Formats: sequence, structure tokens, C-alpha cells
Amino acid sequence: MARIAVMGAGSWGTAVGKVLADAGSEVVMWARREEAAADINENHSNSKYLPDVVLPPTVTASTDPAQVLDGAQEVVLAVPSQSLRANLDNWVDLFTPGVGVISLAKGIETGTLKRISEVVSEVAGLPDGQIAVLSGPNLAREVAAGQPAATVIACSDEARATRLQDAFSTGYFRPYTNSDVIGCEIGGATKNVIALVCGIASGMGLGDNTAATLVTRGLAESTRLGVALGANQMTFAGLAGLGDLVATCTSPLSRNRTFGERLGMGENLEQAQAATNGQVAEGVKSCSSIRELSHRVGVEMPLTEAVHEICHEGGNAVEVAVRLMSRSTKPE
Amino acid sequence: MARIAVMGAGSWGTAVGKVLADAGSEVVMWARREEAAADINENHSNSKYLPDVVLPPTVTASTDPAQVLDGAQEVVLAVPSQSLRANLDNWVDLFTPGVGVISLAKGIETGTLKRISEVVSEVAGLPDGQIAVLSGPNLAREVAAGQPAATVIACSDEARATRLQDAFSTGYFRPYTNSDVIGCEIGGATKNVIALVCGIASGMGLGDNTAATLVTRGLAESTRLGVALGANQMTFAGLAGLGDLVATCTSPLSRNRTFGERLGMGENLEQAQAATNGQVAEGVKSCSSIRELSHRVGVEMPLTEAVHEICHEGGNAVEVAVRLMSRSTKPE
Repeated sequence: MARIAVMGAGSWGTAVGKVLADAGSEVVMWARREEAAADINENHSNSKYLPDVVLPPTVTASTDPAQVLDGAQEVVLAVPSQSLRANLDNWVDLFTPGVGVISLAKGIETGTLKRISEVVSEVAGLPDGQIAVLSGPNLAREVAAGQPAATVIACSDEARATRLQDAFSTGYFRPYTNSDVIGCEIGGATKNVIALVCGIASGMGLGDNTAATLVTRGLAESTRLGVALGANQMTFAGLAGLGDLVATCTSPLSRNRTFGERLGMGENLEQAQAATNGQVAEGVKSCSSIRELSHRVGVEMPLTEAVHEICHEGGNAVEVAVRLMSRSTKPE
Repeated sequence: MARIAVMGAGSWGTAVGKVLADAGSEVVMWARREEAAADINENHSNSKYLPDVVLPPTVTASTDPAQVLDGAQEVVLAVPSQSLRANLDNWVDLFTPGVGVISLAKGIETGTLKRISEVVSEVAGLPDGQIAVLSGPNLAREVAAGQPAATVIACSDEARATRLQDAFSTGYFRPYTNSDVIGCEIGGATKNVIALVCGIASGMGLGDNTAATLVTRGLAESTRLGVALGANQMTFAGLAGLGDLVATCTSPLSRNRTFGERLGMGENLEQAQAATNGQVAEGVKSCSSIRELSHRVGVEMPLTEAVHEICHEGGNAVEVAVRLMSRSTKPE
């Protein structure tokens, strides 16, 4: 029985911990808060993020990273992308030699414009073949409820990707392998921005034709960025591109979409934040990094520019939308 | 002012008639029923299909195809794909020489397995450059309400595609051109089958992860079929592929999705039909033709096979779904 550390006990980290335990591993979770660790150890639950979900007894937790990482052959990183570097700095000395890392984080690091696997490589000094990424249409609550879902595990070392596929496979969770780490990470980062756009359109009262068009054009601009950065365009047509994008853009469970709806109804950033427990949606932050990245490689991303204008330059959502619609038409 | 005939006064034909009139053409619609023609001429409305929509006075209607087609430079075909051949047989002798045809029909002809543009070419004897296809994420009610929407106009003659783009451009309707008629038609036909699958999953109580996965795998199998038939795979990543698929699979306005939901809740074909005004969803019919076409060119289409089994071989939706989920995992 493999011992796997899951660093982070939010909703997605916990759901992934459950998947790994259901697939046969011993799972130790690192929680920031004592109450969360106690809830997992004593009640087999994470009632703050996943009420009604019962975790297997093979999932335990601690707030002590040394205890969690001790003897772990694999480390799953389930902390937000913008705090990942600081966390990882504290953890790397505790890693077992030869450990493999699987990143669940979706985003581009602010400032450095690095993908999360690049941050891991830099901070932990691991070779690329030991760093994998898991990404797909995986709303945490549905996965935790045992609803059927598929995902992508990407790693440049294909043998390792296949081993991880086994470690994450259950009757309800179905991973596909892919060697394109860049594509999976760019797809995971950009989808939050496109989900914000879809939310904004929905908040403005626009319907399903508009949403479908935004998903399509959003995937096109994400693909252009990914390809310019070295990704395989087919990854964007798959579960970590299109699949994740569709789930995030259409589900009422998506935080980015919900946040965008408030902006589209005329709220400003502060009002939308106040209405969503003080949290700013990931897409609000990552649109700036993605935009910068697109400028660096010379790729046009009109939807990302629009989100940036609305979120960070005081742009009016309706005016920005009208301008987008009146761009001259051309071959697709 | 161009005179354009729209043959068929259902919801989509009427919405397209409104678009063309709003874009500046004189539109004459052919309606099967006298009441529908009178409703358009006297009330500027099509209250059966599009209540609350006011048509411009430049949209008129008649039940006499000779009167409708007289002097029309363009003919829009807006009748169901399975009755298109019989209708066209009656109309071709009335066509103005040099006329252009734009097909709105989505489906593959039963028996012959021909795409609709192939049926038009055969029956009307027109060269390919005079036959165009319009397809995209265009739920009729939203377009008729003036909500922003984009679409694709495909024609092998690119100059003609560009002329049609102008004829269909309004402030709310935005056509892109494409030369890939095959891809647009295959995308339009297969999306109804995938929408049925999404409806079935939803009816079984499955959530957004499953829906997003089905959209992704559905687009993958549609793309495989299209490419085998000579289409450009990029068309499937665009508005007539992904865009139309997302709109049809996620909208509560989609007939195929709604029909699938009833099947997923355990109703049989007859019960689902009885609950939806006696209409069988297009995907129920076209899944057989698409399946046959896939066998002919040797392409695997597991979702299409599943719909066929459920709709036409008495397959149980839950058993078919479980079998689909347990296929061995592999690289994406």
C-alpha cells in the first residue's frame, strides 16, 4: 500500500484524498487548521468544504508537514497557486528522496509568470519526469460524491503517468494519461478567466448561444497561447482543455462563473468579493498573469483582455461586451 | 435589396428570416400551413413557434412555393433533413437560374447516408460553389430575441461565403466564413446525438463533470468521423463544432437534450415521444445514419453506439453507461 501525502485540505484536495484512498493508497493530508485535521481524523469528514461526504478510514490528517511527508512516495500539491511557492519552500527539505509530485494547482504565478510545475521544479529542484499535473472537468463536490468523472494526468515521463493513472483509478474516477504538461497547465489556468467571462455574460442577461460562443472563442485563445508556449493543440480539445472549460463555464458550482455573474449584474470587484465570503475568484488574479504571458509571446487574447479591463481597469462590462461583438467579422 | 426565399417557417427558419430582413433583404417565407403564412403577413408574427417575436414588415409569407421562389436570388432551406429531398423535388423547377442555396438542415439522410448539401447537389443539380451551409450555436428563440450570437457560413466558393456573411450580418448576429462544408454538416448532425447522451446522463442524475466529459469525448468522436470523411479537424474546434455542441448539450431549450433526459429517467422511446408532443428528437433518427456512416469509414464512435443501443435495441441506459465507464483507460 503506497503512502501518499496530500498537501492542502480544501474541497479539491480532500476529494482527491478520497479518490486515492478509494483506489487503495494510505493517504495523509496536511491541513492548515487544527480543526480541519481533527475533523478528518475523528469524524472522517471535512465538514467545512464537503459536508455529507464520508472519508475512508485510510485518510488521516495532520497540521505538521514533517509528519505528513514522512515516508510519502508521492506528494499531491493542493494549495492555491499563488501561495504554492511559500508553502513549498517550507516543505522541500522534508521530501523523501525520489519523491514524485502531482500538482492540482491551476494558475500562473503572479510576477514570475511561471506555470506551477515550473515553480515546483525551481523550488524543489526535481527533474521534470518527477513532476505531474492532474487536470480535468472535476468539480470537487461531484467527485467526492462518487459521481463518474474523467481527468488527465500529465507527465513528461510516460511510465510515471501510467503508474499514477493506476493510483488514481476508481470505479467513478477515470484518468487518461498525456505527456503535455504545458497544455494541461495552460488549459487549467485560462479556463478560470473564460468562466468569468461566461459569468459576466450571464449576469448581463445573455443566453446559451452567447455562452457557447464564449466557450468556443475562449478555447481558441487559450489554445493559441498554449501552442505559443510549446503545448500540443490536441490537449486543448481534450478533458484538461475543453472538458474542464465546459464544466467550469456551465456549472452553477463554479466560483469563477458565479463571481462573474455578479460583475455582469453591475457589481464592482469589492461588492462581488463581499458577496462571496471575501474570496476573489482565481480568474480575477490570473487574468493579469495570462495577459502578460500573451503579450510576451505575441498572442491575441481578446476575452482575457476584456476580463482584465473589467476587473482591473474599471471597464464597464456592457461597453466592453458591445465592443467585442463589433470587431470585424472574418474567416473562423 | 436582395430577395431571399426561406423555405420552412419553423422556429429556426423564422428566426433566420428575421435576421436576413434585419440585415436589409426582402424575405419571403414558404409556410406549409395557411395559418402560419397568414400569421406572418397579417400579424408579423409566428405565434406557434416564436411567440413574443415581432417580424419586420419586409418578411412576408405564402404557402405557394412558386410565388415564394419567384425572383429569389438565394434560397434558404429550413425544412427537416429527412423531408428535405421530397420538398426539394417539388421546388427545383421553380428555382431562378444561378440561384444560391443555403442549408440550415442538420442531419444525415436516412438510407442514402448523404449529407444535406449532397442531397441538394443531387436533386437540384447545382455546382458545389452554389451550395452553402449555415451552422453554429444558434438556439432559435435567443436569435429571434436579438441576443448576440455567432455562426459559421460554409461554402467551397469563398467569395460567395463572404457575400452571404454580409447578407446575414446584423448587430446581434455575427457570421464567420469557412470553406469546410463537410465539417460543418457533420458537426451539425452529430451534436444532436451527443445532446441526447448528455440528456440521458442528466436524467440519470449525473452532474456537470459527466456532462463536460461527454461533450469532450463526443466532440472527439465527431471529429474522427468528420476527418475520415474529408473535413478539416479545426472546424470541430470552432463554432459549428464545439460551439453548437455546447449550446445544444447545455441549454434547457434543446429538444434533443430534453428528450434524452426522459430516456435517462427510465422512459422508453414511445413514452418520451408522447411527453414531447409526439415529436421524436432528431438525434434518435440520425444516430442510426451516423453509426452506419462510421462503420463504413471504420471510425469508433462509442457514444453514438450507446445512443443507438438505448434508442433502437432496447438497451438499458444505466447498464450502457456503466459499460462505457469501465472501458479500459488509455492515453487521451
